[in-house]
Amino acid sequence: MSVTIQSLPDIPVIMPGDDLAAHIINAAGGAGLALQNSDVLVIASKIVSRSEGRFASLHDVTPSPQAAELAATTGKDARLVEYVLRESESVSRAGPNVLVTRHRLGFVSANAGIDQSNVGQGGDVVLLLPVDPDASAERLRAALKARTGVDVGIVISDTHGRPFRVGNVGVAIGVAGLPAVIDLRGTTDLFGRVMQVSTLGYADLVASAAHLVCGEGSEGRPVTLVRGLEFPAQDGRASDLIRTAVHDLYR
Amino acid sequence: MSVTIQSLPDIPVIMPGDDLAAHIINAAGGAGLALQNSDVLVIASKIVSRSEGRFASLHDVTPSPQAAELAATTGKDARLVEYVLRESESVSRAGPNVLVTRHRLGFVSANAGIDQSNVGQGGDVVLLLPVDPDASAERLRAALKARTGVDVGIVISDTHGRPFRVGNVGVAIGVAGLPAVIDLRGTTDLFGRVMQVSTLGYADLVASAAHLVCGEGSEGRPVTLVRGLEFPAQDGRASDLIRTAVHDLYR
Repeated sequence: MSVTIQSLPDIPVIMPGDDLAAHIINAAGGAGLALQNSDVLVIASKIVSRSEGRFASLHDVTPSPQAAELAATTGKDARLVEYVLRESESVSRAGPNVLVTRHRLGFVSANAGIDQSNVGQGGDVVLLLPVDPDASAERLRAALKARTGVDVGIVISDTHGRPFRVGNVGVAIGVAGLPAVIDLRGTTDLFGRVMQVSTLGYADLVASAAHLVCGEGSEGRPVTLVRGLEFPAQDGRASDLIRTAVHDLYR
Repeated sequence: MSVTIQSLPDIPVIMPGDDLAAHIINAAGGAGLALQNSDVLVIASKIVSRSEGRFASLHDVTPSPQAAELAATTGKDARLVEYVLRESESVSRAGPNVLVTRHRLGFVSANAGIDQSNVGQGGDVVLLLPVDPDASAERLRAALKARTGVDVGIVISDTHGRPFRVGNVGVAIGVAGLPAVIDLRGTTDLFGRVMQVSTLGYADLVASAAHLVCGEGSEGRPVTLVRGLEFPAQDGRASDLIRTAVHDLYR
């Protein structure tokens, strides 16, 4: 098996209401990479958010007392903290320059995934994550299928830090048309022993692989084509990747 | 940029003292994939351990009182737990079927990375991680350079769970000839804003990408060739990826 990973060139800066499927088809075609069945497209969450108009102005919000308190603890803008709280279920950790929460979508991350870079509207506008990235992924998949006849997988990716390791990695926050988690339990190893506990965070692996060609320093390459993957025919969801609090094994 | 990921075929079951460099050169040549400068080879830690003879017999160990207590808590074999403790700095969490520790190498993982599958010696023998995987990676890199003249990067990979996410991913526990962490701080985004905090866990991304073709279910494919990566000329170490306790942001 040989897998190739390449970023699609010439995706423009996406604006609210833009047709992502059209941009992707154009970019893939322009690069001589007509989409094929079983291709997986990894889409930076930022352009999904932009297409969905998920901008929020710091001028439009009044921080709650909790936001003001956390702003003092973290040294962050209280209005940004207010948006973080609105996007979160609970605060996991706050400290100087650190605000980690459990997002309403279930994952644990810094600043609720709210992006202040590359928003390009004077510094007072931030970008929230898509409302429902799994649904966004499914819509994009359906749009691409309708226009090309091709059945691709979609991973909407974000960049997360890790509790115990240095450096960010790619994670899947939206998935359609491929497994999010692959369960290997019950398969046998080389010597015939049944594997007891083994699952792969498959869509996270795909998101991390895409970061090798479209890392955070390469903001102009938000769509990555991954070709040649072999995966079971499962239509997973990024929510499959969420470990709920009761199962948090490392705390 | 286009990156290709492929597993090398026909790597035999590795035994203590085996010459990994020779096996890799043979396998790459047999597949028509002569090594090139800037190729990165991702090596499953298991075959490094096997080549280094890191087998341990459950018959050779007497569990300490702490091991016996943790065995009762976790339901695991007290002799296995004894090896886990010998390989660990501290216990992070213990519960039914769960034993998470900070490994002597610095990372936090389940069962100190000790492998009971695929050891193939009757079930009473386990396989410990390499003594010093960064050094193993550097030795392998030097051996390949000496015999082929080619300068490759080496990632020795393992499979870790995550505290807040379902499914295992690939991580780097040994690195040579490529950056382990890439620091993007100080670079500017599309709109000219300087990025404040941004580092990539680069060698972990590479390890996870390799898992797409050599996942845990594919024990016969322990060497993966990653070609086409563009990375800064840094000779990183997996220890760069360790977040020390004082910086654990999520606890």
